[in-house]
Amino acid sequence: MAPGGMMPRWTGLTSKSTWAMLVTFTDFGCHGPYLGQMMAVLRHLAPGVEVIDLLNDAPATDPRHSAYLLAALARWWPSGTVFLGVVDPGVGGARKAVVLEADGKWLVGPDNGLFNAVALHSDECAWYEILWRPERLSSSFHGRDLFAPVAASIANGKAKGLFVPWDGPELSQWPLDLAEVVYIDHYGNALTGLRAQDGFKGRVMQAGDQQIPPATTFCDVTEGEAFWYVNSMGLVEIAVNRGSAARGLGLAIGQEVRWCR
Amino acid sequence: MAPGGMMPRWTGLTSKSTWAMLVTFTDFGCHGPYLGQMMAVLRHLAPGVEVIDLLNDAPATDPRHSAYLLAALARWWPSGTVFLGVVDPGVGGARKAVVLEADGKWLVGPDNGLFNAVALHSDECAWYEILWRPERLSSSFHGRDLFAPVAASIANGKAKGLFVPWDGPELSQWPLDLAEVVYIDHYGNALTGLRAQDGFKGRVMQAGDQQIPPATTFCDVTEGEAFWYVNSMGLVEIAVNRGSAARGLGLAIGQEVRWCR
Amino acid sequence: MAPGGMMPRWTGLTSKSTWAMLVTFTDFGCHGPYLGQMMAVLRHLAPGVEVIDLLNDAPATDPRHSAYLLAALARWWPSGTVFLGVVDPGVGGARKAVVLEADGKWLVGPDNGLFNAVALHSDECAWYEILWRPERLSSSFHGRDLFAPVAASIANGKAKGLFVPWDGPELSQWPLDLAEVVYIDHYGNALTGLRAQDGFKGRVMQAGDQQIPPATTFCDVTEGEAFWYVNSMGLVEIAVNRGSAARGLGLAIGQEVRWCR
Repeated sequence: MAPGGMMPRWTGLTSKSTWAMLVTFTDFGCHGPYLGQMMAVLRHLAPGVEVIDLLNDAPATDPRHSAYLLAALARWWPSGTVFLGVVDPGVGGARKAVVLEADGKWLVGPDNGLFNAVALHSDECAWYEILWRPERLSSSFHGRDLFAPVAASIANGKAKGLFVPWDGPELSQWPLDLAEVVYIDHYGNALTGLRAQDGFKGRVMQAGDQQIPPATTFCDVTEGEAFWYVNSMGLVEIAVNRGSAARGLGLAIGQEVRWCR
Repeated sequence: MAPGGMMPRWTGLTSKSTWAMLVTFTDFGCHGPYLGQMMAVLRHLAPGVEVIDLLNDAPATDPRHSAYLLAALARWWPSGTVFLGVVDPGVGGARKAVVLEADGKWLVGPDNGLFNAVALHSDECAWYEILWRPERLSSSFHGRDLFAPVAASIANGKAKGLFVPWDGPELSQWPLDLAEVVYIDHYGNALTGLRAQDGFKGRVMQAGDQQIPPATTFCDVTEGEAFWYVNSMGLVEIAVNRGSAARGLGLAIGQEVRWCR
Repeated sequence: MAPGGMMPRWTGLTSKSTWAMLVTFTDFGCHGPYLGQMMAVLRHLAPGVEVIDLLNDAPATDPRHSAYLLAALARWWPSGTVFLGVVDPGVGGARKAVVLEADGKWLVGPDNGLFNAVALHSDECAWYEILWRPERLSSSFHGRDLFAPVAASIANGKAKGLFVPWDGPELSQWPLDLAEVVYIDHYGNALTGLRAQDGFKGRVMQAGDQQIPPATTFCDVTEGEAFWYVNSMGLVEIAVNRGSAARGLGLAIGQEVRWCR
């Protein structure tokens, strides 16, 4: 396994030594048809590369909250992974098409902030602007027509000439961590944009007028009880044992959270 | 890339020259278990063939609206693609099991209208009736037991003897385009069964008592504003910038649309 | 095809003679990000093995109802299939991590009842406790960190030393069949935990205060009519032709059903 990823070495197991994966992160939904069309392009142009659908219910048309979720998820993957990130409300407008190289990982998508938290959290990064354009470019689906071909080319190791160095976006409005709910998962757990820190230990979190105590994991609290904990991506997450924190506590994406004294 | 598809050539990129893909188009949902069981049959019988889940939330038990959506999507794929189309409320009844060959693409599924718009939009097509039956045929899941094995065999190039020529369905009740909403996507955009025509340019659309002006794409209107535009599949689509047209305008599948003078 | 599976032989079709498939059965949802991360581990550690997403909307945090659904589904697959089953509300707590070998199929996941119905329905089975632990084990995502590596190792045929024989769970509270709704599918059909028996033929089912007559399949009743039938997995299922039985009859997971005299 290449350095730079949080993915564990599986001591004692047999494993491949190489890694070439394309990973999708979008707000398309998985039922279709957008993911399927984009997948066809990836399969066609990068036939030997594994493609994993990582997450396709990113906060819809909301690159800012998606950005902190993507940064937490991307950290887990090793160097060489190519992320095709498409949360793109400004498609067809003036926003650039960009590539971010961050600690050996590659991210391809729109310049609307979606990759900013990855850049902020990386040790080394470089931005590029995509100059290549396909023969036919729809006004509303650059994921299929522009970003997928470029991502496939990077995964193939044949992307020379498709993009040029770029200074990168203005990041002054982007905090290192976002003290807001950035994602509600399938169970109703509310993930925040806060990476776990030692200083959080034992503190009580406030979200709206709710006070939320800490726990290590689900089975440490009684059924129906709310708590916050450090999740498997390293983020502070608000959960309810065998219940929905979103419904039970009235949490939605964008809800601000803070630590009580 | 074979002729007949709208998929672009990616000028300057490295690409494979062959294409053998099986594509699913169903009303199964992607959570399971129907898609997974059908996929197992495809993987087992056509192990070297790529399978793409194109769309699995087609209008449920509604072949007519599904048909116009499928026709628009199928157009994008090149010759040689095999579509496994299962929207099949009459499963277990008297409807035939059929294959449609249309401009070099193959479609396998029930004869209930699902492939009629593809046939109407094709330059050349031929219909076949599937005579082959598996050892065990469930009464409610021909997608798994009958259509998937036939689709896999076509993708393998070994379907000889499984089906025989057929005259095809009666198409007199099938217009070339359907002036109705045929699909609501993950964002709440309402896709109609109208393929874009030059004569539509600049016109105002009416859906119920709503009047909807045209735009080129999302970022051409202000947030929350409704518009119609030509989408990435070539269909007229009603959308709201960063919002849900379905919810905002009260649109559902089957809603009739028309052009205002 | 190996013995032990209900999957048909496809008489007259060309088919592969080997079978090595990893199958996911979880309550993760398919939108992400849990399935995608688990998939990455499977693809990485078992690169030549087909992975099929069978079902990812199992009753959430409900191993008991999930168990009867899984048992019906697992029956269809042939010997050699490896099931990665993760419905795991007790993750991070004292429950064991186990492997069940049942009629040549392998199931990997938590010991919380999820595999009990498979064991009860099998002719021969053996239980194992997983002793292996990864370098890093999150408190809330053993599907990714523990079960996926073990399942991949079994699929690779290289699981020696990862688990040891175990007596298995106490099954006295587990009936052979569960006379309750165990799953609501995408259409709103209500699947029960009752496997079809000859004695059920022609009988009327009662669910709450609803009486539900039998039928062979959907097209045998008029549109909107409720009926029960034997579904494609061999379970008794309550359905409404072109409608939702769950909504129409007020059915939910856990609803008890019984036969009227």
